Amino acid sequence: MKICIVGLGLIGGSYAMGLALKEHEVYGIDKDMKAIAYAKENEYIIEGYHNDYSIISKCDCIILAIYPQAILHFLQEHSSLFLPHQVITDVCGVKGSFIRKATLLAGKATYVSHHPMAGKEKIGIEYADYKIFKGANFLITPIDDRKTEAIQVLERIAKDLDFGRITTISVERHDQMIGFTSQLTHAIAVSLVNSDHDEDTVQFIGDSYRDLTRIAMINDALWSELFLENKEYLLKHISSFEEQLDLLKAALKQNDKETLKKLFNQSTIVRKKMEK
Amino acid sequence: MKICIVGLGLIGGSYAMGLALKEHEVYGIDKDMKAIAYAKENEYIIEGYHNDYSIISKCDCIILAIYPQAILHFLQEHSSLFLPHQVITDVCGVKGSFIRKATLLAGKATYVSHHPMAGKEKIGIEYADYKIFKGANFLITPIDDRKTEAIQVLERIAKDLDFGRITTISVERHDQMIGFTSQLTHAIAVSLVNSDHDEDTVQFIGDSYRDLTRIAMINDALWSELFLENKEYLLKHISSFEEQLDLLKAALKQNDKETLKKLFNQSTIVRKKMEK
Repeated sequence: MKICIVGLGLIGGSYAMGLALKEHEVYGIDKDMKAIAYAKENEYIIEGYHNDYSIISKCDCIILAIYPQAILHFLQEHSSLFLPHQVITDVCGVKGSFIRKATLLAGKATYVSHHPMAGKEKIGIEYADYKIFKGANFLITPIDDRKTEAIQVLERIAKDLDFGRITTISVERHDQMIGFTSQLTHAIAVSLVNSDHDEDTVQFIGDSYRDLTRIAMINDALWSELFLENKEYLLKHISSFEEQLDLLKAALKQNDKETLKKLFNQSTIVRKKMEK
Repeated sequence: MKICIVGLGLIGGSYAMGLALKEHEVYGIDKDMKAIAYAKENEYIIEGYHNDYSIISKCDCIILAIYPQAILHFLQEHSSLFLPHQVITDVCGVKGSFIRKATLLAGKATYVSHHPMAGKEKIGIEYADYKIFKGANFLITPIDDRKTEAIQVLERIAKDLDFGRITTISVERHDQMIGFTSQLTHAIAVSLVNSDHDEDTVQFIGDSYRDLTRIAMINDALWSELFLENKEYLLKHISSFEEQLDLLKAALKQNDKETLKKLFNQSTIVRKKMEK
């Protein structure tokens, strides 16, 4: 396929890297000349563009690896370049209302969003590595699931990038679940690290603290958008988490060892099922 | 050194394995004949005992790798075997009041507790592996820091097991900090997993959820004791964490993107300092 990746950051760069190795013709668009130069030097892309966007009309698939608000601007500005046979997609961590707008703005082309559930706590193409996708979950979120051909294009991309479980689900289901598994976990990690009021904490940490807080290193511009786009679900999940923490607190205050053990047993059973 | 390890579980077994390789004479005590047989077969110990404890009097160092309450019972029952030149220590994750009792019960021997900040979400000697200690934090918590010789014995053990940063601190400081870095993280992971009310969550998880919840697979008997032993500090840390989560919730409710970004920036800066 001829593929155009808009946004050569960590994720866009990793897509370009992996798809080029599978012999797709990959082109790149980015505002940053350095990112383009890096992608070309490393043969992630055949050619890169920063102000001439006509390449879009020559591609079969356009992957938008930029932030939610930037996606809407991009679609608005360049809608004249989209053609009926094209599949346009994005890699955003929330879908919600913004995807409905994107679908309208895609005009003649077919817009089907997806979400690659992998990443790194880094920003920029120099950290790109398609191996981060190996075995990861890949969620396809069509608004209209009769868009079979576009879904097949995305499934092919997922397979070429070595993703694991590929699931097609509704936008609402996506946002509900991602509010839990992704945004709530980030909210927790950020709050945990921000409640660290000691200078010497590093002397007292083990792998558990390191693993749990790694995602507290977070891209503030991207994640503030993701949180606000999905705030209804996220707030519900926070409440549900707080209820569980309250049960644990109550057991502690009452020296109720049996309830603590029950809570620990429950979490052990649920979590064990998720081992790869 | 002649070392006797009481409790050949995951941690006791890993100590035996690593210390035997450094040519210490290692003996083991356990109620479970199978654990003793396993340790002997794999040459972690020279000999193991399950009802004859006289080996204790022949050793320089006794490492208690059993649960807090079991430590007190053990010391009480076998105090007649302890000698003035001996160092007795334990590997417990909380110190608090129980260490003061243990110090008294150790009688003529010198009791200095320590905490190896490493582990696995597994139970039993068959998962033992001294490599889990490589580079990890090792905390020595004497009640009386004039016990220099005993501290040196523990430092030698830490070095022989390839631990990283070795820190000597007070019992109070230990429990305060461990309440944050260890018990709070476990309380959070357990509550997060217990707030999962969906059958299909596994389709929607990425590495962040996996990393954050791994410690929700938790030894209920051990951790209910640890939580209750350190409940004052743990409850304070939970409150402090909840305050931060409240700030984040308020920002979400008010669509306050700038505050979200500020919270994300803060956590990123603090956490980055902890990278190995």
